Amino acid sequence: MLQQNRDPNMVNAGDMNGSGNLMDFLDEPFPDVGTYEDFHTIDWLREKSRDTDRHRKITSKSKESIWEFIKSLLDAWSGWVVMLLIGLLAGTLAGVIDLAVDWMTDLKEGVCLSAFWYSHEQCCWTSNETTFDDRDKCPQWQKWSELLVSQSEGASAYILNYFLYIMWALCFAFLAVSLVRVFAPYACGSGIPEIKTILSGFIIRGYLGKWTLLIKTVTLVLVVSSGLSLGKEGPLVHVACCCGNFFSSLFSKYSKNEGKRREVLSAAAAAGVSVAFGAPIGGVLFSLEEVSYYFPLKTLWRSFFAALVAAFTLRSINPFGNSRLVLFYVEYHTPWYMAELFPFILLGVFGGLWGTLFIRCNIAWCRRRKTTRLGKYPVLEVIVITAITAIIAYPNPYTRRSTSELISELFNDCGALESSQLCDYINDPNMTRPVDDIPDRPAGPGVYSAMWQLALALVFKIVITIFTFGMKIPSGLFIPSMAVGAMAGRMVGIGVEQLAYHHHDWIIFRNWCRPGADCVTPGLYAMVGAAACLGGVTRMTVSLVVIMFELTGGLEYIVPLMAAAVTSKWVADAFGKEGIYEAHIHLNGYPFLDVKDEFTHRTLATDVMRPRRGEAPLSVLTQDSMTVEDVETLIKETDYNGFPVVVSKDSERLIGFAQRRELILAIKNARQRQDGVVSNSIVYFTEDPPELPPNSPHPLKLRRILNLSPFTVTDHTPMETVVDIFRKLGLRQCLVTRSGRLLGIITKKDVLRHMAQMANQDPESIMFN
Amino acid sequence: MLQQNRDPNMVNAGDMNGSGNLMDFLDEPFPDVGTYEDFHTIDWLREKSRDTDRHRKITSKSKESIWEFIKSLLDAWSGWVVMLLIGLLAGTLAGVIDLAVDWMTDLKEGVCLSAFWYSHEQCCWTSNETTFDDRDKCPQWQKWSELLVSQSEGASAYILNYFLYIMWALCFAFLAVSLVRVFAPYACGSGIPEIKTILSGFIIRGYLGKWTLLIKTVTLVLVVSSGLSLGKEGPLVHVACCCGNFFSSLFSKYSKNEGKRREVLSAAAAAGVSVAFGAPIGGVLFSLEEVSYYFPLKTLWRSFFAALVAAFTLRSINPFGNSRLVLFYVEYHTPWYMAELFPFILLGVFGGLWGTLFIRCNIAWCRRRKTTRLGKYPVLEVIVITAITAIIAYPNPYTRRSTSELISELFNDCGALESSQLCDYINDPNMTRPVDDIPDRPAGPGVYSAMWQLALALVFKIVITIFTFGMKIPSGLFIPSMAVGAMAGRMVGIGVEQLAYHHHDWIIFRNWCRPGADCVTPGLYAMVGAAACLGGVTRMTVSLVVIMFELTGGLEYIVPLMAAAVTSKWVADAFGKEGIYEAHIHLNGYPFLDVKDEFTHRTLATDVMRPRRGEAPLSVLTQDSMTVEDVETLIKETDYNGFPVVVSKDSERLIGFAQRRELILAIKNARQRQDGVVSNSIVYFTEDPPELPPNSPHPLKLRRILNLSPFTVTDHTPMETVVDIFRKLGLRQCLVTRSGRLLGIITKKDVLRHMAQMANQDPESIMFN
Repeated sequence: MLQQNRDPNMVNAGDMNGSGNLMDFLDEPFPDVGTYEDFHTIDWLREKSRDTDRHRKITSKSKESIWEFIKSLLDAWSGWVVMLLIGLLAGTLAGVIDLAVDWMTDLKEGVCLSAFWYSHEQCCWTSNETTFDDRDKCPQWQKWSELLVSQSEGASAYILNYFLYIMWALCFAFLAVSLVRVFAPYACGSGIPEIKTILSGFIIRGYLGKWTLLIKTVTLVLVVSSGLSLGKEGPLVHVACCCGNFFSSLFSKYSKNEGKRREVLSAAAAAGVSVAFGAPIGGVLFSLEEVSYYFPLKTLWRSFFAALVAAFTLRSINPFGNSRLVLFYVEYHTPWYMAELFPFILLGVFGGLWGTLFIRCNIAWCRRRKTTRLGKYPVLEVIVITAITAIIAYPNPYTRRSTSELISELFNDCGALESSQLCDYINDPNMTRPVDDIPDRPAGPGVYSAMWQLALALVFKIVITIFTFGMKIPSGLFIPSMAVGAMAGRMVGIGVEQLAYHHHDWIIFRNWCRPGADCVTPGLYAMVGAAACLGGVTRMTVSLVVIMFELTGGLEYIVPLMAAAVTSKWVADAFGKEGIYEAHIHLNGYPFLDVKDEFTHRTLATDVMRPRRGEAPLSVLTQDSMTVEDVETLIKETDYNGFPVVVSKDSERLIGFAQRRELILAIKNARQRQDGVVSNSIVYFTEDPPELPPNSPHPLKLRRILNLSPFTVTDHTPMETVVDIFRKLGLRQCLVTRSGRLLGIITKKDVLRHMAQMANQDPESIMFN
Repeated sequence: MLQQNRDPNMVNAGDMNGSGNLMDFLDEPFPDVGTYEDFHTIDWLREKSRDTDRHRKITSKSKESIWEFIKSLLDAWSGWVVMLLIGLLAGTLAGVIDLAVDWMTDLKEGVCLSAFWYSHEQCCWTSNETTFDDRDKCPQWQKWSELLVSQSEGASAYILNYFLYIMWALCFAFLAVSLVRVFAPYACGSGIPEIKTILSGFIIRGYLGKWTLLIKTVTLVLVVSSGLSLGKEGPLVHVACCCGNFFSSLFSKYSKNEGKRREVLSAAAAAGVSVAFGAPIGGVLFSLEEVSYYFPLKTLWRSFFAALVAAFTLRSINPFGNSRLVLFYVEYHTPWYMAELFPFILLGVFGGLWGTLFIRCNIAWCRRRKTTRLGKYPVLEVIVITAITAIIAYPNPYTRRSTSELISELFNDCGALESSQLCDYINDPNMTRPVDDIPDRPAGPGVYSAMWQLALALVFKIVITIFTFGMKIPSGLFIPSMAVGAMAGRMVGIGVEQLAYHHHDWIIFRNWCRPGADCVTPGLYAMVGAAACLGGVTRMTVSLVVIMFELTGGLEYIVPLMAAAVTSKWVADAFGKEGIYEAHIHLNGYPFLDVKDEFTHRTLATDVMRPRRGEAPLSVLTQDSMTVEDVETLIKETDYNGFPVVVSKDSERLIGFAQRRELILAIKNARQRQDGVVSNSIVYFTEDPPELPPNSPHPLKLRRILNLSPFTVTDHTPMETVVDIFRKLGLRQCLVTRSGRLLGIITKKDVLRHMAQMANQDPESIMFN
């Protein structure tokens, strides 16, 4: 109809009355505009300005009616509501996971006759027949051998229990890996590398979906119960982020804005750590230091709220049965002495070395899994590793029990009531035994055998963790790392204690360790070692110390912890700057521009921009001389995510930037819905297209999708500045000009590839845009 | 010599051998290049790239020799050394200030005969003649009346003590205000608004100087001892920042780079709060949330280190004599109940209202002081306020003692041994008295009179604090704010307690407050009130809760604190978004671009840029057609801080940006040191000036001072994006282009003025650039 209209004035009239004004048509956003493709990077500036627009609209509407005003209030409050919901759900899930893991771990050894859903401890607590001393043994709790062949001692009972232990472990692990493979492949791993990447502005659809949430929660219980050398802390962060994603999809403020959604996810990560360790402040700092990318201060306050709600929800579920928030509650009775800093720093060195070893070996193994046939049999791999773990772990009491129980025991000070093998000291019969403040004593045979078992357990944990982390099951490495450090620390601690007891006349001990004094606390060494190893692997600093501080609840022991954490970080950094999460991000080729990396090379924007010298010239659109067909050809022939729009091919003066995705959508829509737009219609990006000769086809006005404020830098801009701009503003691409002329383009991928090249890495490892 | 050289080839030879190659000459930076003028804004991007340059140089040099390698190691370690030194000095100063304040506060009432430098408490502790019950009364400590007229009781003794109390107070205050006026005018106030501005990238020379440090420390002791309604916490942050500035001036890495120096200052602020409250984690979060602007994560770790060192230094000085880190250590014995949230939220509302009232009145009074004759008599003002404070404060026991002691008493739970008037409850004679867990009891006459006195003290504190904060003496408002809140809170707490005791059959009390139970802790109410009032005035959130959490040391009471802090912030924000520090920044017209403010207006860069429509065109330099004289005239006639350089006046295509300060320095240097540069020499900003005709004067090549990567945005860029860019990248100015042509310039001042205009404030209030 419009095509037949010969009078140019009538064209306008037709526009107004006919198929609608072109500008109006584009004012209504067509579907999918403003969304991103999977495995692409978002544009933070655009998301932010879209949110401001939305906010402006709501504010101006809210003055119109009371209903709109209430709606605007609800909108303003929705952030807090989302936080509350995340806290409640994350806390509940963490509590349920804790309870289920407790029960299923014990199920490998036996069952409660009075109620099969009770764990060993619950079973005996509810029993009336046990005395205070013998809380672990009660008739209701039966080992499998007792139940099946009515034998509780002897070799055959042992072998039966051993066999059933392995069978249960294999069964749990098989179930877990099958569930992950069939229902939610994204549920594997710790999830923190991917969450870091997502928070930095990358899209991985389904990674935080409902199925992932469900399957990860279920399989996490299974794999932790199966006795594999892995922890639930990292995956809990992933689970909390899934909760965050779920609740943010309920509010349009967050669901329709990828930038705002990431604010919620940052807070959810804090809630996840908060429930993992019972450390809300540590959780917020972890999210700030380790996970988040853009962390506006408003988010800090909300994250804190979410972390607190989660922690209190968990406490009201009370899975540990002790009303404590924290996973490992410890109370020490003696201060530490200056001379002890030396072993603490040694533990720091150990932590750093362990971190380096672990990262190198694990990455090498994961790379092998990715590149060789090994990766094709994930189920078999899990089964084999589980079998090896179970076979080796069962005979050693320190590996048979769950890793968190082990850490808890290693952290504990030997009180008077302690019955653990680790506390088997020879008591002076002449001394009355006060409950606290027991002096250092010579080690008994139990301690010596415990030392041997711990040493074996340590070697086993070190080796098996390297192979476990990265399999196709949910797996965290906070707990295994801490266990390695705690075992090493406890052994060093007992060593120092015995040294001080037997050689209290040495100069270094003389001042603070008289006979009969309680001067060395081996449990503190275990804690310091755990912090050092965790620091070596993850390179956390402040959040690590704060989490540990929240565990002990006193500033007293913060100096040893800091000394170990600092040493461990320095030692590990000397061998390579990357923590385990960054290493996995690189391994997977995610486009993650680390805030902590410093770019110190002397290159300029002109060295990085495309096209390089000798390459074909930059594909550009002109503002008023290309036809629809030209544009379509350009889109078909290239795979760029967007095209700069210039005044003309000769002048190359930049007008704006058009996204590929929106160009395609706009042209498709125009061809379907607008009469008169044909292949040789001219595409106009100018404000007012000139009046066309009567015969020419109807023009396509696309100014609406043109980004009129594309980011530009000059070709002389140092790359360190460009990197800084990409990081701080969260750009996808940036145009390069020289004295007003467009020269080229730099995308985030170009920046990352350049950085990889400068660091002598393979630039092709950066795969996504 | 060069001017006479007719052969163009010889010019180059002359260049090389004679006065030196021009580029070489400019490669050696002439003095003052890269520094900033007083009351100007720094360019963060430039500072950062200068630091990277320095770092690159050191790294490449370090491979040359072992000595250079050691030097590079020392350079890398200097950051930690600075932190250590700051922590040590800040902790020591805080300890000294605490001890001195203790002594001088007591000096107003009496003197220790055995050693005049002992405070009351120390005097009686060292005495052997006191019994446990009567620790406050010992013969060595003599009130002035006892010493002078040998009378300790009676009206005349009272009047004498009263008179001497006022005299001492006046004496201290006079000394303080005179010292500040004569030696260090910058030592007045809390310092936090200025430190925020400095950290955001502003230069105020001398504000963190050695004199300021010294005078602020001394006068802080004087004013706190004089009994004025002010605290030492804010000024301690200033003192710590002065320490930071002092130590950073010792290392060229920090002294020569304004950006790096600010990293040190951020950490110093954390150390300041850490010693002020004994809360290292709270200090770091305070610095992050409230004070700092650019806070790289590396700084977080170092800040934490500095804060810890400071806290432990303070503890080893042990000024409170109790080995405690924290200012107000509290331990409560009873949990709180859900129903108590209502009074807690009420306290939050009170805190918000107090915050609003205080900010409005204080700003109005300070504005009056600035604009009327009042400001001309700062000494008189201080004397009058001190006199009024002393006269009113003495008769009331709750205002006579130091404010921190008052807060400490209000926070305390009434134990069995408590002798305070506030704990004068009527005991049930039939009950045995356990030490802890005393049930709620009816209030005795002491409590009732204490309530009256507290009410009067509350009104007095509210009024006098408004007039005190902002006088020309060091003054913080953490402590007065907390005192207001603690008094209100304690009164509410006692009210609820008595209500619950007398009406324990009401529905709301029935569930948790049976007779004989200890259900209400008035001290907790005082703490919640203090948090609410502090939050209302400063609008701190996370750091406030964390500081309070570190005071109580348990997560138990974090929910009441959060509820009050959130309510207080919401109530206060409803009346105005600015906290007291932001309000003072605005009052003083500092160019502070707040990270927390959201810019939500729909304006574009073109609306803000200069020149506006109708104004004279932008002053620009051309790359190769202006003479030295032209440039000098332009500099003389305008006061812009820099000039864009374009290809030619016609094309207006942008080449770069030249700083005014560097242009002046370069021309001055060239005229002095380079023969042949005369007024009609052509100034070249191009890479290779064309060969000149033989007769023409020697050209001046200034490409070296040209910033080839000036920041540009298009005229269509929304102002919210521009504001974001200014904030995140720390720009001084930004050029505006349209399709490659230079249109105008936006400076930080323009942005701030535009924001003020949009918020219906006076844009002229922004005074600095």
